[in-house]
Amino acid sequence: MPLIVQKYGGTSIADAERIKHVAQRIGAAHDKGNQVVAVVSAMGDTTDQLIELAHEINPAPAPREMDLLLSTGELVSCTLVAMALHGLGYPAIGLSGAQAGVRTDSTHRKARIVALEPERVTRELERGNIVIVAGFQGVTPDMDITTLGRGASDLTAVALAAALKAERCEIYTDVEGIYTADPHLVPEARKLKEIGYEEMLELASSGAKMQPRSIELAAVYQVPVLVTSSFAEVPGTLIHGGVTMELRNKVRGVAVDRNVAKITVLGVPDRPGIAASLFEPLAEVGVSVDTIVQNASVERVTDVTFTVARGDLHQALKVVEPVAKEIGARGCEAAQGLAKVSVVGTGMQNAPGYAAAMFRALYEAGINIEMITTSEIRITCIVAEDTVPAAVRALHKAFRLEEE
Amino acid sequence: MPLIVQKYGGTSIADAERIKHVAQRIGAAHDKGNQVVAVVSAMGDTTDQLIELAHEINPAPAPREMDLLLSTGELVSCTLVAMALHGLGYPAIGLSGAQAGVRTDSTHRKARIVALEPERVTRELERGNIVIVAGFQGVTPDMDITTLGRGASDLTAVALAAALKAERCEIYTDVEGIYTADPHLVPEARKLKEIGYEEMLELASSGAKMQPRSIELAAVYQVPVLVTSSFAEVPGTLIHGGVTMELRNKVRGVAVDRNVAKITVLGVPDRPGIAASLFEPLAEVGVSVDTIVQNASVERVTDVTFTVARGDLHQALKVVEPVAKEIGARGCEAAQGLAKVSVVGTGMQNAPGYAAAMFRALYEAGINIEMITTSEIRITCIVAEDTVPAAVRALHKAFRLEEE
Repeated sequence: MPLIVQKYGGTSIADAERIKHVAQRIGAAHDKGNQVVAVVSAMGDTTDQLIELAHEINPAPAPREMDLLLSTGELVSCTLVAMALHGLGYPAIGLSGAQAGVRTDSTHRKARIVALEPERVTRELERGNIVIVAGFQGVTPDMDITTLGRGASDLTAVALAAALKAERCEIYTDVEGIYTADPHLVPEARKLKEIGYEEMLELASSGAKMQPRSIELAAVYQVPVLVTSSFAEVPGTLIHGGVTMELRNKVRGVAVDRNVAKITVLGVPDRPGIAASLFEPLAEVGVSVDTIVQNASVERVTDVTFTVARGDLHQALKVVEPVAKEIGARGCEAAQGLAKVSVVGTGMQNAPGYAAAMFRALYEAGINIEMITTSEIRITCIVAEDTVPAAVRALHKAFRLEEE
Repeated sequence: MPLIVQKYGGTSIADAERIKHVAQRIGAAHDKGNQVVAVVSAMGDTTDQLIELAHEINPAPAPREMDLLLSTGELVSCTLVAMALHGLGYPAIGLSGAQAGVRTDSTHRKARIVALEPERVTRELERGNIVIVAGFQGVTPDMDITTLGRGASDLTAVALAAALKAERCEIYTDVEGIYTADPHLVPEARKLKEIGYEEMLELASSGAKMQPRSIELAAVYQVPVLVTSSFAEVPGTLIHGGVTMELRNKVRGVAVDRNVAKITVLGVPDRPGIAASLFEPLAEVGVSVDTIVQNASVERVTDVTFTVARGDLHQALKVVEPVAKEIGARGCEAAQGLAKVSVVGTGMQNAPGYAAAMFRALYEAGINIEMITTSEIRITCIVAEDTVPAAVRALHKAFRLEEE
């Protein structure tokens, strides 16, 4: 009997009505003769509400207690979905992450899965049950509850699909699949029938809607992932490994990430070890630095610019300003209101001309590029946030993404 | 170092402010040189809200899923109290019932504790931590989450106190202790400094504010229990085992239980096996029958009257009516609007005159007695609910409970 792992996000189960609707979809998959495991997130904005409550009590809550607190959101939704299935006459059981065998290290708030031991899940499937699993959470060897990081219910689903050797992992969300660009910005954006893991990874880390770690994991275990809508009956986008060859020389999509702030350290003495002395203290406080640009040195003095997530800007400045003074820099400047616009496609590997085409398209649309960064299958420009709609439309047109 | 187990109920931790206040009290006990374990209930009416949500989705939710759902209420509060202690600078850790070693059978919704294995609690205490435990919940050998029945955070606290050989179990609540009668009904009601387990058991099962099973457990393990206010600094009432002798010949208090409905089966043929055929079907559907009275048989026909909790009346009638027909009874009558009024005291054992004094006091207050039931240390009269205030005042006065 084929085994399918499904995952439903918070908006798909935001209230009692939607939970009943999701139960019908899960039941329908069961009716088709599949064994079904469904991973669920917390309802609506439960997680944010719990975080707010914790901060009312302690502005800096301990990560261990925070994890135990946040894990309740998914426990609630997994039990409610199981109850809704019972109401429809299906045999079903709700399991916590710990019960489903999600073993993690003890890095609270962003634990990594060290093993998946799904014996209980298998046993319940063999008994004929539909198994509903609380996403986002696991358990340490010491039986402490951990969470796997924001959006990590996707990760739970892919990890279970890998461990159970599922035929497919289906991610149900509030969009109908992966598009060549955000349809709100580009009306002629086209939904992709399929996409490779690496391309999806670049689209996801540049702002599209699936958690990057889960895509990596799917790639490692070669789990086919279908991203589709929980509200409409649509085919969605299949993410899998076998599409690279035929799609060579093709940009697959344009991605946007608006969560960008920039810090420039001015007049940095250009000598060995300076980069380390700037970035090590940031790593120590857990601030992730993204793009780094060091301008050409003029008379042994240089400007170093880097980007961080907007929420980290305040803390990053607090760390960097004293360091800048210490190393004899002239000062720091910060800027928000920036965004990353990226074109993504495996076809771009070692193929010249894509970067030039991108820069020309932006230039012709009158958009100034602040910084540039590239990976093997992605070219990213950092631009002023208010130019994003124009930039995305220009790029979508330049690379003819509306064409099949 | 002395070890104290405390328990805080839902009203004591209903919001962020109260949680911080409770954290101060827990911290104060720690400052006095005690090792402290604090058991907490769910915040305010969280449990009722979760039940309501479940019923929106399924009117008859599965007990197993219901337990996993309800257990989240106490997880939330135990983590928040731990965070509040951290905010005050105390080392603290929040543990689920499972982590605290509360092992139960798998009777969901009202599981019984089969073992308490508090190794983790002991380890955390030895590390210097204050340990906050989620009350009301445990775990089966199969790692399924169970709950111990309504009000069972008291039970968690007493069980932990017994297993850890604590010096004392302190129950913090919204009243200041155990009174000779409800102070709302009898202004001159007196707070008891101490009371025996058996007396407390009778007061509790007749409506006072501590879960009966937890008192039984305290009696078995001879755990001294202090019931006191979480809002005021007051001495409270100590429940312990050594007070029976000196308090002989004394009524200790008047208790009220308003949760009473009555069913009378009329014209029952008086032959062997009739009682079983009436009450076995009730037991099968889980309806607990309390007082049973069978009137003297006139011409081999009798009336059988019994009481049930009001919430069970509808279901009890549904079960009893067809049985009554089957056994040839004339019919069924139901009545609500009743209450139990009890006088309680170990001193009443084998001492004549208390029942007579009770009946006279009620008679002189013009109150009609519907049914009577007694235990070794309790006499209960079932009366019309609207006569409760007058009945309690009359009994409090007749037994001079206002006197020390």
